[in-house]
Amino acid sequence: MSELINGWVKSVSVNPPSLKDNTADAERFEKALKEIFNAEFVDIDLSITGILPELLRKSNFTLRCILFKDHNKWRLAGITGNDDGIIAGLAIDLGTTTVVLRLTDLSTGLTMYEYSFPNPQIPIGPDILTRIHFAEKEDGLAELNRLIISGINDAITKICGDSHITPSGIYLLSVAGNTAMTHLFLKLNPHYLIREPYTPVINRPGCINARELGIDANQSAKVFVFPNTGSYFGGDLVAGILYSGLNRSDKTAILVDVGTNAEVVLGNKNWLVACAGAAGPALEGGVTKMGMNAGPGVIDSVRIDPTTGLFSITKIGCCPPKGICGSGIIDLAAALFLSGRIDIRGKFVSDACGARLIEKDGLKHFIVISAEESPEGFDLTISQADIDSLIRSKAAMYTILETISSYVGISLSELSTFYVAGTFGSLINPRSAITIGMMPDLPEGTYKSIGNSSLEGASMILKDCRLMNEIDAIRNSITYIELNVNQDFMNRLSAARFLPHTNLSLFPSVNPVSSSSAQERD
Amino acid sequence: MSELINGWVKSVSVNPPSLKDNTADAERFEKALKEIFNAEFVDIDLSITGILPELLRKSNFTLRCILFKDHNKWRLAGITGNDDGIIAGLAIDLGTTTVVLRLTDLSTGLTMYEYSFPNPQIPIGPDILTRIHFAEKEDGLAELNRLIISGINDAITKICGDSHITPSGIYLLSVAGNTAMTHLFLKLNPHYLIREPYTPVINRPGCINARELGIDANQSAKVFVFPNTGSYFGGDLVAGILYSGLNRSDKTAILVDVGTNAEVVLGNKNWLVACAGAAGPALEGGVTKMGMNAGPGVIDSVRIDPTTGLFSITKIGCCPPKGICGSGIIDLAAALFLSGRIDIRGKFVSDACGARLIEKDGLKHFIVISAEESPEGFDLTISQADIDSLIRSKAAMYTILETISSYVGISLSELSTFYVAGTFGSLINPRSAITIGMMPDLPEGTYKSIGNSSLEGASMILKDCRLMNEIDAIRNSITYIELNVNQDFMNRLSAARFLPHTNLSLFPSVNPVSSSSAQERD
Repeated sequence: MSELINGWVKSVSVNPPSLKDNTADAERFEKALKEIFNAEFVDIDLSITGILPELLRKSNFTLRCILFKDHNKWRLAGITGNDDGIIAGLAIDLGTTTVVLRLTDLSTGLTMYEYSFPNPQIPIGPDILTRIHFAEKEDGLAELNRLIISGINDAITKICGDSHITPSGIYLLSVAGNTAMTHLFLKLNPHYLIREPYTPVINRPGCINARELGIDANQSAKVFVFPNTGSYFGGDLVAGILYSGLNRSDKTAILVDVGTNAEVVLGNKNWLVACAGAAGPALEGGVTKMGMNAGPGVIDSVRIDPTTGLFSITKIGCCPPKGICGSGIIDLAAALFLSGRIDIRGKFVSDACGARLIEKDGLKHFIVISAEESPEGFDLTISQADIDSLIRSKAAMYTILETISSYVGISLSELSTFYVAGTFGSLINPRSAITIGMMPDLPEGTYKSIGNSSLEGASMILKDCRLMNEIDAIRNSITYIELNVNQDFMNRLSAARFLPHTNLSLFPSVNPVSSSSAQERD
Repeated sequence: MSELINGWVKSVSVNPPSLKDNTADAERFEKALKEIFNAEFVDIDLSITGILPELLRKSNFTLRCILFKDHNKWRLAGITGNDDGIIAGLAIDLGTTTVVLRLTDLSTGLTMYEYSFPNPQIPIGPDILTRIHFAEKEDGLAELNRLIISGINDAITKICGDSHITPSGIYLLSVAGNTAMTHLFLKLNPHYLIREPYTPVINRPGCINARELGIDANQSAKVFVFPNTGSYFGGDLVAGILYSGLNRSDKTAILVDVGTNAEVVLGNKNWLVACAGAAGPALEGGVTKMGMNAGPGVIDSVRIDPTTGLFSITKIGCCPPKGICGSGIIDLAAALFLSGRIDIRGKFVSDACGARLIEKDGLKHFIVISAEESPEGFDLTISQADIDSLIRSKAAMYTILETISSYVGISLSELSTFYVAGTFGSLINPRSAITIGMMPDLPEGTYKSIGNSSLEGASMILKDCRLMNEIDAIRNSITYIELNVNQDFMNRLSAARFLPHTNLSLFPSVNPVSSSSAQERD
């Protein structure tokens, strides 16, 4: 098991004091630290200074040191003797819906444990806007902060118990979340985030003492919080860019994080342009109001068996299907469209749907799998309203992609890679997304699903001390464009409200059967 | 009432955010701060960031900001609106025996209140050595730390109550104390201070959050702790040098702090050499084991009335005399010597003393003022043991002065100024000290009593932000010499055990009557 060369943990030896040089332990040690880490200045907590003299003498003047870097200065996060066990770090993806933690051995870089839990702020509001309004009430912010911090502390207890370490063995934490979640985590009022001119309290929180945040870790542990570039482009995205490598490539690529919002970054090593899909009344409801969240029992993919013409599904976990998530709905819509069961406006075609089209509460429903067909005895339907909602969402998504690419003056077809991030994003079948015109008609190899890139970016920074500067560089090089919902945008949005698009030449690979030739088999 | 130009309080205005520039409040504010204070980087606590957005908007984007500087970086200690009352600072002289606090208005530099209290660690040990040993016991350090911190907090309550401010109005604190007291204040183990090679835990504590130390002040208040140059040359002396201006003068001068120890600094703007009188067995008992501490009812000066030949006294306060302090003993010994009542070895001369010399418990005592002579009916005597003790102390003092001046190769007679610091030092009559050969025979105008220079230095740093670099420069330019108790030192010490000295040519101004011509009048 090899040690990380560019990790945050290094062995530091100092000369024992003598009558010729009886410089204080703290300064003697700081000098050695600065040499080893090539740092101009190292900030050392009084709590570390307090344990330094005994630990130095007990360990023959050689210690393992854990540092972290904050903007332009280094901070000591802890010291241990040579045999004092695992030095751990914790990466946290601070999602609006789900919080994911990954425990890492900082010496080797190996993952020790991964754990996720639903954001405990959900009972206050499933969406971030409700929480921001709640934070404006008396003690609202304190309550939201308490919920997320105690949720993380509970998770730390669980993780440490299962990994046979104590929380005091955690020295570094890195946290990536959207700007609002980051504010709630830091107990900073998110009030102005959602009010013109959309000003965060802080852009670059840097490194903060874990104990100051109430996080259960080593008493001198440091928490690095990923910077944001504004209210709508958070540290989760900066972490995602870091992970994707968008900022290191010669070729222009795009990163789309389809989480609670859709955030898009386009660029290469020379420039990065970003926008987010939460802006403007035209995007009311966002781009991802599709089906339920992915989870056990949720159907995540649907296809039509080419032989039998029957719909077949896959679902998450082993429990009976409870519903269908966004990626499943995209698959389903693509299948319905390709087979002529919905038309280019997304409306059910009665002839093609046949007996599978029923009416319930005055709304058309299509039976995807009837109770009789399903081994689980489950009656799976999709309504016209579901399809309409999907079309609004996919149109918004495509319009954002068109807008940002036209802003920088390149065509979507020029993109070398199309990174899809986020839990939802990672489940999307690019072929289906192309079919309904949600994503551009690029060769399928261009699409690269990178999963929870926020967590991955947060993990990366725990393993490589050179990346801290890169994070600052990413943040500083992002040009964030506000999505101006002007006539041009509205025209694009209207054109994108068809399947796959009014301009079919944009989607040459999509070839639905004509509605008239579609036949319901049974 | 004019504002301090180079103070730590400045008014900072920022542009309100706009859609064209919606940089976060914290970064917008930090940028303005950096410009105003000409700082490369300003450290802002999360607690300040938390109140920033509302305060900025409430105060039309103009705040009063209190900064402090730590080595190479600036730290924000607080922000207030324009009408939010007095911004106070507290200078603390952390004495082994007495703790003195001075409350200062940081905007104007005016002193608001001064207060002192006995060091609450005295019951554990009147001297620092006993306390260091106590700190080695289980929870001993915590107890000593608790005592001094709660003593300071009690004093803050008193000071604030009387000054009609709240502790949250205190933003900056500066603390000057000897190295051991500083360690106890910071809860750092003083164990190695007194063990070869006499290594402190820390030389430059810098700025620390008041709340981290448990000090009752503003939640983001910063405490600057004066640096030491070693176990025996503390921040109190560095503060004293700052106040004396020794380090700013072309001419070579000396600063002698006669507190619990005697610490000496010799130098000018180019170099500083220091030593302290606690080193070595030859100085066992130190240089100031003379009489009792100054306080109400204590006799602080003694003279012989040239007309009546009677001894007359002055005492501190209005209560009846309880004893005699060091400065009084020096006066008395000088008077006894000049009048031939003690000889050059300090022994009572029976003929000259006459009936005033009595024997008590087998020891000679000289009645300075008999009960009948004294309006208070108080019988004031001094024993041979008292005189012997004084002579050991004065010999140690003079030897240290000779040693340090010979180390740098100058004669004591070349000194431009002889600064005498410390509560005890400020009471010493230079003429008497010269007479007994405790201090060199310099023109009396050369002597300058500067009082509690530790408190004065601590106060200075609260008023002038340019001095922080000067403090570092002082600390870095001090060459500390260990007093090697070698044969040379012992020879010097022996020669200094006479009144004023075996080498009378060193004290041309001292002319005692010959013992034989001295006559007791009654």
